[in-house]
Amino acid sequence: MLSRLAVALVHHPVLNRRGEVVATAVTNLDLHDIARICRTFGVGRFYVVTPVDEQQKIVAQIVRHWQEGYGAVHNPDRREAFARVETVPDLRTAQRSWSERQGGEAQVVTTSARAGTMSHAECRQRLDAAPLLLVLGTGSGLAPEVTDCGWPALEPVCGVEDYNHLPVRAAAAIILDRLFTAR
Amino acid sequence: MLSRLAVALVHHPVLNRRGEVVATAVTNLDLHDIARICRTFGVGRFYVVTPVDEQQKIVAQIVRHWQEGYGAVHNPDRREAFARVETVPDLRTAQRSWSERQGGEAQVVTTSARAGTMSHAECRQRLDAAPLLLVLGTGSGLAPEVTDCGWPALEPVCGVEDYNHLPVRAAAAIILDRLFTAR
Repeated sequence: MLSRLAVALVHHPVLNRRGEVVATAVTNLDLHDIARICRTFGVGRFYVVTPVDEQQKIVAQIVRHWQEGYGAVHNPDRREAFARVETVPDLRTAQRSWSERQGGEAQVVTTSARAGTMSHAECRQRLDAAPLLLVLGTGSGLAPEVTDCGWPALEPVCGVEDYNHLPVRAAAAIILDRLFTAR
Repeated sequence: MLSRLAVALVHHPVLNRRGEVVATAVTNLDLHDIARICRTFGVGRFYVVTPVDEQQKIVAQIVRHWQEGYGAVHNPDRREAFARVETVPDLRTAQRSWSERQGGEAQVVTTSARAGTMSHAECRQRLDAAPLLLVLGTGSGLAPEVTDCGWPALEPVCGVEDYNHLPVRAAAAIILDRLFTAR
């Protein structure tokens, strides 16, 4: 059964190391890893958010390779993982798409390595109540344009030390495990 | 404070898709991601296990770049992550090294996407009692030469669906989160 959770990986608007708003490049690696992680936890849709035409084409090419091309035959597990990947130009489109697919307004919850107060338990409860779009940022994180929208933010994934430089792929794995695995 | 846990990423002996015992290539990506994940959770040592000379040199080169080279200046967070990486030719050397560093015999616990019965809670208890080396396999998993050593194996990280194709990087993130984050 598919979950009512969808994941959005945002490439714009995000911050770079200097705090400037940029569009990051899509990486093959993030697509593969996060698609496989989403598939593992039954996430219903994985939205790759980028307004850049050329970047959208790259995503389409990668997805096609693993859905229809040599990759699909060579690695059917990967085909399954890529079946739920969709490229959208912005977050609002992702939210609209997920709401339409779910037949009800999708809530948006953002993530951050620094801020955010919603516990994973509360996020799980919200997900039980209605469809939800979980938003991950690339680069140095989501830009204010996203974080200032009034959407709640999930608490950061903290380790045991004062070091918050997890790859977004690792954060995605941990967050989904916390949301879906019974403790 | 450093944990009594060390992580070993094994490149030989592991299985390929056809079930043959092989040595996989070290990937820059696994080193970066797992080093950062280990750093996040205060893991004391990250052993990269490969008997292949050329591969050991590649690891040394990557570590040096981030420890001393341009990378260390450009990205101090990465320098911290790479400070605990060490290359060893085999698992026994990793176990010996970790035992010596900890001043006591390190227990070994293996991981697998298919088998294994030790719960994460039990592994946490063992870790409280004595130093522990957690063993991750690359390729299609650890070879029988490792899994038949009599070491206990951690239960697989299962999602909500029948799909066990997590990247080793994602599995590492989830396992360490389960071991170290209070529930």
